[in-house]
Amino acid sequence: MQRVEVTLAERSYPILVGPGLLQSRELLASHAGDAQLLVVTDQTVARLWLPRLAQGLAGHDFARCVIPDGEEQKTLETAMSVIDALVAARIHRDGMVLALGGGVVGDVAGFAAASYQRGIGLLQLPTTLLAQVDSSVGGKTGVNHPGGKNLIGAFHQPRAVIADTDTLSTLPDRELRAGFAEIVKAALVADAAFFGWLEQNAGAVLAREPEALAQAIRRACKIKAAIVAQDEREQGPRTLLNLGHSFGHAIEAGAGYGRVLHGEAVATGLVLAAEFSARSGRLKSEDAARVRALVQRAGLPADPPRIGRGRMLELMGMDKKVAGGRLRLVLLDAIGAATATADYADDALGQLLAERVGA
Amino acid sequence: MQRVEVTLAERSYPILVGPGLLQSRELLASHAGDAQLLVVTDQTVARLWLPRLAQGLAGHDFARCVIPDGEEQKTLETAMSVIDALVAARIHRDGMVLALGGGVVGDVAGFAAASYQRGIGLLQLPTTLLAQVDSSVGGKTGVNHPGGKNLIGAFHQPRAVIADTDTLSTLPDRELRAGFAEIVKAALVADAAFFGWLEQNAGAVLAREPEALAQAIRRACKIKAAIVAQDEREQGPRTLLNLGHSFGHAIEAGAGYGRVLHGEAVATGLVLAAEFSARSGRLKSEDAARVRALVQRAGLPADPPRIGRGRMLELMGMDKKVAGGRLRLVLLDAIGAATATADYADDALGQLLAERVGA
Repeated sequence: MQRVEVTLAERSYPILVGPGLLQSRELLASHAGDAQLLVVTDQTVARLWLPRLAQGLAGHDFARCVIPDGEEQKTLETAMSVIDALVAARIHRDGMVLALGGGVVGDVAGFAAASYQRGIGLLQLPTTLLAQVDSSVGGKTGVNHPGGKNLIGAFHQPRAVIADTDTLSTLPDRELRAGFAEIVKAALVADAAFFGWLEQNAGAVLAREPEALAQAIRRACKIKAAIVAQDEREQGPRTLLNLGHSFGHAIEAGAGYGRVLHGEAVATGLVLAAEFSARSGRLKSEDAARVRALVQRAGLPADPPRIGRGRMLELMGMDKKVAGGRLRLVLLDAIGAATATADYADDALGQLLAERVGA
Repeated sequence: MQRVEVTLAERSYPILVGPGLLQSRELLASHAGDAQLLVVTDQTVARLWLPRLAQGLAGHDFARCVIPDGEEQKTLETAMSVIDALVAARIHRDGMVLALGGGVVGDVAGFAAASYQRGIGLLQLPTTLLAQVDSSVGGKTGVNHPGGKNLIGAFHQPRAVIADTDTLSTLPDRELRAGFAEIVKAALVADAAFFGWLEQNAGAVLAREPEALAQAIRRACKIKAAIVAQDEREQGPRTLLNLGHSFGHAIEAGAGYGRVLHGEAVATGLVLAAEFSARSGRLKSEDAARVRALVQRAGLPADPPRIGRGRMLELMGMDKKVAGGRLRLVLLDAIGAATATADYADDALGQLLAERVGA
């Protein structure tokens, strides 16, 4: 088992990565204590992995709340069904929510835990690569609103993240690759050596070789943990973790939600961010080429769908005024060195987008 | 203008108390800056005091969201109508909610501010005595759930509390007295000298003499601010502020919500807590008599409705197991010295309740 600390004073917690963790009675007992528990999961994960968790919790009574599968469940209604389950189980303020699943389960159950009785304990038990390296770490919880993604939510740090790498054995290849995109992102933001390691070991990670996979997860978590520790509420450096996301969110929306996975859109966004950084004279063009090459090697889309430049800019929010007047983009000065900046040329951006998504 | 600080590291903020504050352009500008604003208020306060606030905000554009009057509006639906208004006004993460009203407005608008974009700025502009001395200070926000009061919420500290004492001029007498109960509570918890002052000055405060009223508000806020600074999330000393509330909540529910005001039920709860403390040998009986006398002098109910001992204990949650096995009550060791304890005799409690609410 590997261990990474998220250091946030009295809200500090460990990220634990390794095989067999869900069935480790000792580990679960050390984090759940004798609290009243509600396990939240979705239908697929309930079938595949809830029995394993029940084994780990043997002897510890728990209530359960199984939500339907799918991104479209990331709503206030679903979060309220979790709250209803907490009320029905008469969970007290010192009770705890265990979120067993991918990003949707973690975000929804996390928001319910943040809001029930003004906040109760939360254990994140991520079962997808994306959740293990990104969404379960750092305390962002939330649900979508008809007016936009993640508009309703809370910062609510878990008491621990327990990433059982065995659960990745049942993850579809496409989702594994989507999670890999967030690992590439972490390396690009802060760790050139790790990027080099990924270039060498992408094949082994995507073939799910246990050593390589655990190493990739640990190093990605370490980068995220260090940034979150500096800036829990995303008022500064944490925005760097949005590298590729301004482009990515626009691609997700432009393709129609559900057509492109979040991680796939982020992968394309990373290539666009790198190429725009190169054209802006920030990044060496051979480094931008390395980003494109790694994304392609991982079987991820390097190029966006042809949704047209105007629509793309609109979806990026560049058609409207934002705080301070101008959208900040996260760009690269080098592999491993990202910057949030409003200092870029609109013409050059329009030109790149015209080439990539059509005029 | 009087000023009390709530000291919570980077979440510290001032409570400002005095006449004419809502129309002070300088004061409002210093707290609202050039942020995008949404003013949330209810129908009655909109009619009485929104024009005054609009004067104070002159030149600063703001959106508004007017919710219906009444305690029954303290729901998730109402909070979501505030979020919808934030979305409709395209408020960014650095925008701000101004909660102009009593406890319901503050709690609902506060929860919306806590949850929108994972938390945006909040100014509390309380217009009732209860909100000025209690509910607007300390960051508790929340709404009711069919399963219980305040089950959904967040700790979300405001950027400032601006208590314009002019707004109390339109407050009905009954609500003024209800707010006075929370002032008495604050004194009982932590400040014997202030309790003595209240015995001398209850008449002047309830006659709304400006000096007396401002002094009472300031001293009550100072007590609450000191306790919140020690224990923001109510894991320790902040529970002392629940003095009278275990009894009070049961009285509210037992009488039927809306029949008894929260502050009235708290007043009765303070008398019960004091008398039970005296019977338990903690408090001198002449001090319990002083509590009863002050509550009566303020025109507040010293005795509860005759809802019966069994129902009362059930509503206090004493019929079911709670964390640690036994309900903790806040009791008095002296005027100005409260204690949360599970060390009391059930028989003696049952006996007192049988006398006060019927067998």
